Amino acid sequence: MNLKQLSSMLDLSQTTVSRALNGYPEVAEETRRRVVDAAKRHGYRPNPSARRLATGKAGMIGYVMPTGASVEIDPHFVEFLSGLGDYARTHELDLALSPSTMEDEETTYRRIVANRQVDAVYISSPRPKDSRIRLLNELGIPFIVHGRSEGLDFDYPFLDIDNEAAFYEAARLLVQLGHRRIALINGNPDQTFAIHRERGARRAMVASGVELPPSRIRALPMTEENGYAAAREVLASQERPTAIMCSSMLMTLGIIRALRDAGLSVPGDVSLIAHDDVFPFLRPENFPVPLATTRSSIRSAGQRIAERLAARIGGLEEGARGEVWPVDLVVRGSVAQART
Amino acid sequence: MNLKQLSSMLDLSQTTVSRALNGYPEVAEETRRRVVDAAKRHGYRPNPSARRLATGKAGMIGYVMPTGASVEIDPHFVEFLSGLGDYARTHELDLALSPSTMEDEETTYRRIVANRQVDAVYISSPRPKDSRIRLLNELGIPFIVHGRSEGLDFDYPFLDIDNEAAFYEAARLLVQLGHRRIALINGNPDQTFAIHRERGARRAMVASGVELPPSRIRALPMTEENGYAAAREVLASQERPTAIMCSSMLMTLGIIRALRDAGLSVPGDVSLIAHDDVFPFLRPENFPVPLATTRSSIRSAGQRIAERLAARIGGLEEGARGEVWPVDLVVRGSVAQART
Repeated sequence: MNLKQLSSMLDLSQTTVSRALNGYPEVAEETRRRVVDAAKRHGYRPNPSARRLATGKAGMIGYVMPTGASVEIDPHFVEFLSGLGDYARTHELDLALSPSTMEDEETTYRRIVANRQVDAVYISSPRPKDSRIRLLNELGIPFIVHGRSEGLDFDYPFLDIDNEAAFYEAARLLVQLGHRRIALINGNPDQTFAIHRERGARRAMVASGVELPPSRIRALPMTEENGYAAAREVLASQERPTAIMCSSMLMTLGIIRALRDAGLSVPGDVSLIAHDDVFPFLRPENFPVPLATTRSSIRSAGQRIAERLAARIGGLEEGARGEVWPVDLVVRGSVAQART
Repeated sequence: MNLKQLSSMLDLSQTTVSRALNGYPEVAEETRRRVVDAAKRHGYRPNPSARRLATGKAGMIGYVMPTGASVEIDPHFVEFLSGLGDYARTHELDLALSPSTMEDEETTYRRIVANRQVDAVYISSPRPKDSRIRLLNELGIPFIVHGRSEGLDFDYPFLDIDNEAAFYEAARLLVQLGHRRIALINGNPDQTFAIHRERGARRAMVASGVELPPSRIRALPMTEENGYAAAREVLASQERPTAIMCSSMLMTLGIIRALRDAGLSVPGDVSLIAHDDVFPFLRPENFPVPLATTRSSIRSAGQRIAERLAARIGGLEEGARGEVWPVDLVVRGSVAQART
């Protein structure tokens, strides 16, 4: 059965049937239900190109992908994309990646919106006062931010994890275990997630009279190599930290290398907690000593963002809705009572 | 200056100017040069949507992205995508990812071709007798395979690295260092790259009378965890290997964990060589013992495939051209003379 046959059977126009099946709000609920029931009963599955003709939609979610010599797309992106793909696949949406340098970002957003190449976009790795969010708000295309900005004078739709609470809980655990010299090896300092993590860690420490001086903080792109370099520096100080919190599992590989170089054991000399985005290729249980983590699946975030973008495209979600996911603290063998 | 002004200045139609700038073969070389010179002189940069109208192209490279519960997109994909993006960005091409299950792959290719959603596609992780290649050949859309298939009765355009020679060289080095029990921990056994690597390793060993029995081969998806499990198994055998070759750096992290568990040292007890796709987040120099590798940048492969796809879209590359890149063997501290 095709769209024409289904429509004439129901005595409705093809446009109405197509809109009903795609959840458009202008179709009355009763009509929608009648169409969906009939489609199910007769095994009708909408043809995407017919759908596009009927609805004027591109059937695509857009992403302006940072590229260029100094930019690294990292493994987080793959996991997020897998999640986005999981949902998009079952809803016949494709993803359009528009590679762009930082300088050309605005032009690229304007282009993909003007060309009606995509029906909605998402933004990742937001920074404080992120100009991309203001731009998309002005352009009027449905969008969701993965993460959050700060310091904007308007609200916007986003999905974030509670980075501040996660690092608050992790730091509080370390303080409760008697640690007084705790280092933080964080991600890119211009990104909001890293700012929130530092804020959470600091809040827990300050509450117990523990300091977090600049000499115990490093904030860098999250590679194994940067984890190693940062750990070497914080470990070299007179007052060596007895615990390290880290924003990334890959960086933590480098921290473990630096500890081994220095002849220090985990958790005997130094306790470790890292944030885990749940990569299937590198699990915290499998670290030399099972790694304590703050855990939240970035793949699930990808699925949820695709779901919400589809809802916004279909007019089923509107307004500046923010969604913040709690983060699990998973205690494993890499944390222990501080030696005194 | 816009397209209209440039065209009237040159006394050519807008279509001709646009086609000339996009390298279409039907424009005479002399005309093309005149247009390109004028565009440069007057700072004209084609507007992509005007270009699309004039040329009938979507301005997109397509990729059918495997998704679903049992599928892991891995970090290789990010690096490849970064490279593809590097080139695509400077040539105003976007990437369209169409998520699909294995079962729906054919339908998905047919859909994106029928909808004229993309101008060209690439295929990754090819298997022997890969049905996707036959399909794209029939559909007549420009495409390139990243990697190679085997057992097809026609030629097709591809870009591959010389996996067989890489593992031949690596195995030969180990044999020359006196190793007689060499294990191979390989990637997905249904993919051609893994078949070629095993073939290369075996060829070097057989040439020196060294065996590669099934008990010393494992072939699995390339995660840290699988590397660990595979190494545990091959190390448990009566005749413990004195060297391990591995298809992935992430798996090698797991192999090193298994060696540590077993109280074995690198390279004292076991020599290690792994294939390195050049991930910026995990470098072989930074392994506990600097890791010997067969090295080829998957990011460069992404750039080159975008370049060739653009050439095919513009009619500047045709036919079944195969391109095979040599692989570097980089000797570092993880290989040593076999103890006898």
